[in-house]
Amino acid sequence: MIDLYTDSSPNGFKATIALEELALPYRLHHVRIEAKEHKQPDFLALNPHGRIPVIKDDETGIVLFESAAILLYLAEKTGELLSKEPVQRWETIKWLQFHSSSVGPIMGQRVHFELFSQDKIPTAIERYRRLVDGVFTVLDTRLADHPYLAGQDYSIADIAHFGWTHIARIIDFDFSQYRHMSDWHERVAQRPAVRKGITLPEPATGA
Amino acid sequence: MIDLYTDSSPNGFKATIALEELALPYRLHHVRIEAKEHKQPDFLALNPHGRIPVIKDDETGIVLFESAAILLYLAEKTGELLSKEPVQRWETIKWLQFHSSSVGPIMGQRVHFELFSQDKIPTAIERYRRLVDGVFTVLDTRLADHPYLAGQDYSIADIAHFGWTHIARIIDFDFSQYRHMSDWHERVAQRPAVRKGITLPEPATGA
Ligand SMILES: N[C@@H](CCC(=O)N[C@@H](CS)C(=O)NCC(=O)O)C(=O)O
Ligand SMILES: N[C@@H](CCC(=O)N[C@@H](CS)C(=O)NCC(=O)O)C(=O)O
Repeated sequence: MIDLYTDSSPNGFKATIALEELALPYRLHHVRIEAKEHKQPDFLALNPHGRIPVIKDDETGIVLFESAAILLYLAEKTGELLSKEPVQRWETIKWLQFHSSSVGPIMGQRVHFELFSQDKIPTAIERYRRLVDGVFTVLDTRLADHPYLAGQDYSIADIAHFGWTHIARIIDFDFSQYRHMSDWHERVAQRPAVRKGITLPEPATGA
Repeated sequence: MIDLYTDSSPNGFKATIALEELALPYRLHHVRIEAKEHKQPDFLALNPHGRIPVIKDDETGIVLFESAAILLYLAEKTGELLSKEPVQRWETIKWLQFHSSSVGPIMGQRVHFELFSQDKIPTAIERYRRLVDGVFTVLDTRLADHPYLAGQDYSIADIAHFGWTHIARIIDFDFSQYRHMSDWHERVAQRPAVRKGITLPEPATGA
């Protein structure tokens, strides 16, 4: 059985969506960031960096933090959402890494300077809007001629990006001008596992 | 044969070090960021995001950008630098992802605000110093009781972090107070493949 420690947030949704897609049984532990539960000793023992999501798999004893590591692990455990055909497999991993290194962290900085920071610093806000537009352009171009990021098939690369595009919609980081990316977002949003994943843990952000 | 497109920079060193460690034959293509060669159409055809490193493996036809994807690929191609034993394998992937999602991008933002940006914005500089100190503390704690990030063995997780700690030394992002991390850095820096990797492509940054 898998234990998932998470909150209602972009990186957390990657884990809940994947677990729902794979129909793996899991126990959901709500780590309330607002209440600083992610800085408590019992959680820091699982992830010394104090960030969600974290999984613990009691079949293997493996404990993982970092959403991209969790997605890879769940895909390899089940043999799903990550093709075994080499070209497809590496397209998937490339776009997963593009998300986790080039998209997620940059969207996180935009959230900080645009929404959370007390000072509104125009050059910093402008920097992260520009960088986010850059990655949205890359995604839109990719999705112009592929239904999913890895190619023909839905994969963990889509799940990773969707965790953040779902929140982008809620907080008004508009991407409607990126037509192919918007169409992809709608396509992914209709999947039952995705609809369920974004409500967990309750109450859902933006609900 | 592998083609590597890179420049003398933190993410580039991850690829040159890994290729040197694995003694894989490769052709080195110098993409001069200062001359904006990474924004030319032929390079953008390899990576639409316009970032180095990129590899192309003509044995498999696989083209990869994102340094963490490249490290995983080279490790799986050779069966080295990534344990096959499950617990070790996932420790390695977890710490690799910690680098690529939580360390590299944050060090990149610190470089921007502290060194590159025209305006020196105290709150932004302070933010990234604090976040970098946070990840250095996590690394130092991990390395207090493990010689390498994945545990007993040197792996792609060490190579990923070293690409950035090497540059941190050159640009004076001091981590000498993190004693275990500093010892680890020295240990890794002595490896012949690492010493070679950081000189490629020539001329080396900071040389
Ligand atoms: N690179 C990490 C990022 C994890 C992360 O930043 N999680 C956020 C929630 S979406 C968090 O725990 N934030 C709490 C904090 O920063 O204090 C991943 O992909 O898992
Ligand atoms: N997440 C990417 C980052 C790649 C990256 O930012 N590379 C830098 C050099 S270290 C680059 O190409 N910079 C050029 C630019 O930003 O225009 C990776 O890990 O490969």
